[in-house]
Amino acid sequence: MAADFAGAAAQLVKIGRRFDARGWVLGTSGNFSVVVQPRPLRLAITRSGTHKGELTADDILDVDDAGTALGAGGGAPSAETRLHLEIVKARAAGAVLHTHSIWSTAMSDRHGAEGGVAIDGYEMLKGLAGVTTHEHREWIPILENDQDMTRLAARVRVTLLERPDCHAFLLRRHGLYTWGATVPEAVRHVEIVEFLLESVGRKEAASWPS
Amino acid sequence: MAADFAGAAAQLVKIGRRFDARGWVLGTSGNFSVVVQPRPLRLAITRSGTHKGELTADDILDVDDAGTALGAGGGAPSAETRLHLEIVKARAAGAVLHTHSIWSTAMSDRHGAEGGVAIDGYEMLKGLAGVTTHEHREWIPILENDQDMTRLAARVRVTLLERPDCHAFLLRRHGLYTWGATVPEAVRHVEIVEFLLESVGRKEAASWPS
Amino acid sequence: MAADFAGAAAQLVKIGRRFDARGWVLGTSGNFSVVVQPRPLRLAITRSGTHKGELTADDILDVDDAGTALGAGGGAPSAETRLHLEIVKARAAGAVLHTHSIWSTAMSDRHGAEGGVAIDGYEMLKGLAGVTTHEHREWIPILENDQDMTRLAARVRVTLLERPDCHAFLLRRHGLYTWGATVPEAVRHVEIVEFLLESVGRKEAASWPS
Amino acid sequence: MAADFAGAAAQLVKIGRRFDARGWVLGTSGNFSVVVQPRPLRLAITRSGTHKGELTADDILDVDDAGTALGAGGGAPSAETRLHLEIVKARAAGAVLHTHSIWSTAMSDRHGAEGGVAIDGYEMLKGLAGVTTHEHREWIPILENDQDMTRLAARVRVTLLERPDCHAFLLRRHGLYTWGATVPEAVRHVEIVEFLLESVGRKEAASWPS
Repeated sequence: MAADFAGAAAQLVKIGRRFDARGWVLGTSGNFSVVVQPRPLRLAITRSGTHKGELTADDILDVDDAGTALGAGGGAPSAETRLHLEIVKARAAGAVLHTHSIWSTAMSDRHGAEGGVAIDGYEMLKGLAGVTTHEHREWIPILENDQDMTRLAARVRVTLLERPDCHAFLLRRHGLYTWGATVPEAVRHVEIVEFLLESVGRKEAASWPS
Repeated sequence: MAADFAGAAAQLVKIGRRFDARGWVLGTSGNFSVVVQPRPLRLAITRSGTHKGELTADDILDVDDAGTALGAGGGAPSAETRLHLEIVKARAAGAVLHTHSIWSTAMSDRHGAEGGVAIDGYEMLKGLAGVTTHEHREWIPILENDQDMTRLAARVRVTLLERPDCHAFLLRRHGLYTWGATVPEAVRHVEIVEFLLESVGRKEAASWPS
Repeated sequence: MAADFAGAAAQLVKIGRRFDARGWVLGTSGNFSVVVQPRPLRLAITRSGTHKGELTADDILDVDDAGTALGAGGGAPSAETRLHLEIVKARAAGAVLHTHSIWSTAMSDRHGAEGGVAIDGYEMLKGLAGVTTHEHREWIPILENDQDMTRLAARVRVTLLERPDCHAFLLRRHGLYTWGATVPEAVRHVEIVEFLLESVGRKEAASWPS
Repeated sequence: MAADFAGAAAQLVKIGRRFDARGWVLGTSGNFSVVVQPRPLRLAITRSGTHKGELTADDILDVDDAGTALGAGGGAPSAETRLHLEIVKARAAGAVLHTHSIWSTAMSDRHGAEGGVAIDGYEMLKGLAGVTTHEHREWIPILENDQDMTRLAARVRVTLLERPDCHAFLLRRHGLYTWGATVPEAVRHVEIVEFLLESVGRKEAASWPS
């Protein structure tokens, strides 16, 4: 789970380019982090207000387990740093990635009132850590969006406790959070969940028989 | 707000490549400007009839506050230079960007009769300058398209006065105009409004319950 | 209208890369030509069976006004060379481009029985040569597809005579043909007509009120 | 059909980049193989669990006709190696490609209960080996997905026997398998079938009259 800070920053810069090419981090949306040291916890996380397709190593900040930036560089860490910290603690994650795509936003809206969306029967589910068959039912919780980060972080903590098996959650009209033991696993989870949400979303939009 | 002309031109060339990759400036559509000097006003603006994905520095013209090209280079500034000037004056903008995407065109058509489209509840709204919560209602005015630039410029002026809080407007079946205090802010506004229009457009097209 | 052969070939290679990136020439679909000499007519045209995203100069053949390949290189010119020749003669075109996109195919199918599709009111129409206002009605004829090139070429000839103002036509379930006095004009026409067909197609598919 | 292993590996790396750019191999989905020697059969095939957009030559394994990896490198060949072997044997294929796109997944789901999807009348069909006219009806079988590779391989074998003319098949909610005598032919088949599935899928989703 440990990684050197410069290496972690380079990985996040690359992820930003990839996700920007797919249109998943438009504007200055999205935020990414990597655990660089587990105890005491140190996180490399994207600076607030940056365009994720144009990140440089200077846009990656070093924060502690209270979300305080430690380095000499200016700027504040992502406003959603506390959500990253909750996920890292609850899941022993090595990386946390938040994307803000058209389809994750659409599905978070459409299924928000139900509190989540269930996806089953897709081969792509096997790419989620620990899942070995398409005959798996993944519940992706959807949380109401909130500008009060203390309240939202608490809701994230409760959700992760209540749903110990979930690999991702959505914030309503806001997008996707997922994570992994390693950076590649977290990237894989983003691609898989984005694929699944678009697949189910297009199917529902088509008004085909389910 | 001031910037040197060569630097401004380089920024517009880069923006053209990015927006072309997203399919937002097909044909020779779209036009971009940057304020290079506020008083007397000097604008770096794209030449009329150029492909925005293939701009070179020679395609950026230096115009005054009447829209007259000043440099030695040939060609005419964008036919919509007057709209840029109205926006710069009304909003003290440092950059104005016009894109012509599938979704901004579709939404300008679908909601044209209502005179605008309201978008609220999306986290992405927070990327608009001065907006601090997703609990914000953005009204994007839609103006009838017009080949008479004097008339259209006057209508833009009135709209910007009547809607002092709007961050963008649409021309019907023509596309999106937005702006920012700086070039990065204007780019961010394009990406955010394009995202929001596609999100709302896909939702409406799907005939899901709103 | 004249251009040297090597320059023409380089332009077609570049167009192939651009259109492939947009998904408009999947498989080995699409074909492109440039007039390199008007009288006697000489055409640089893509070789049959090539992937347009991976063209090299060797894939561009030199053909005469009967569609016979003149150079030393192997392979046959595009099976649709006769359609290019009809267009060059009827329109005094300097370049002819055929794309095979999802939306041009879909619209050629949906409106095939009506023999064409009318598009009006879009600003993007102004990018078509000679059109000066969005208040223009463009009729895009749709021809039944045919493997008999003699018969299909004759039908193209008749259509171009009957519709002297049209800037493009569709072959049913086959895609788009357009042209221009120059290569950049033909490219612009492709991008504009593809944009318009997708715009109208998405609108119709959405079952919004027209 | 024979090719040297290093050359085959380089081709698969390149295919991975191309298909990743189109979003057809998200997560670690997809797998590709090339026959490097027909008798005894040797296959170059992608390693299990790799991201296809980031393949290196080390991710391509050398397997025999029982699917056993022969080289010194670590890791296991694709879990679906047996399906590749069935296809190579039944069709004398030189390359087998499996993509996992949104549209192939959607169509495999929508038409799964019918056991396949028929596509006819499209010019793009002519790009399938041996097809010379758009007046061709291609039946694309859809097989139920299965984690038991022995059972699934047997079902693939039967399907290929029963449908000697088919150029591709789908696994339900899993994606597309196609092949070719050569690598370029297999790539062409992927692009053509993906195009056709998206074309038919969008048409059906639009609830236009067929």
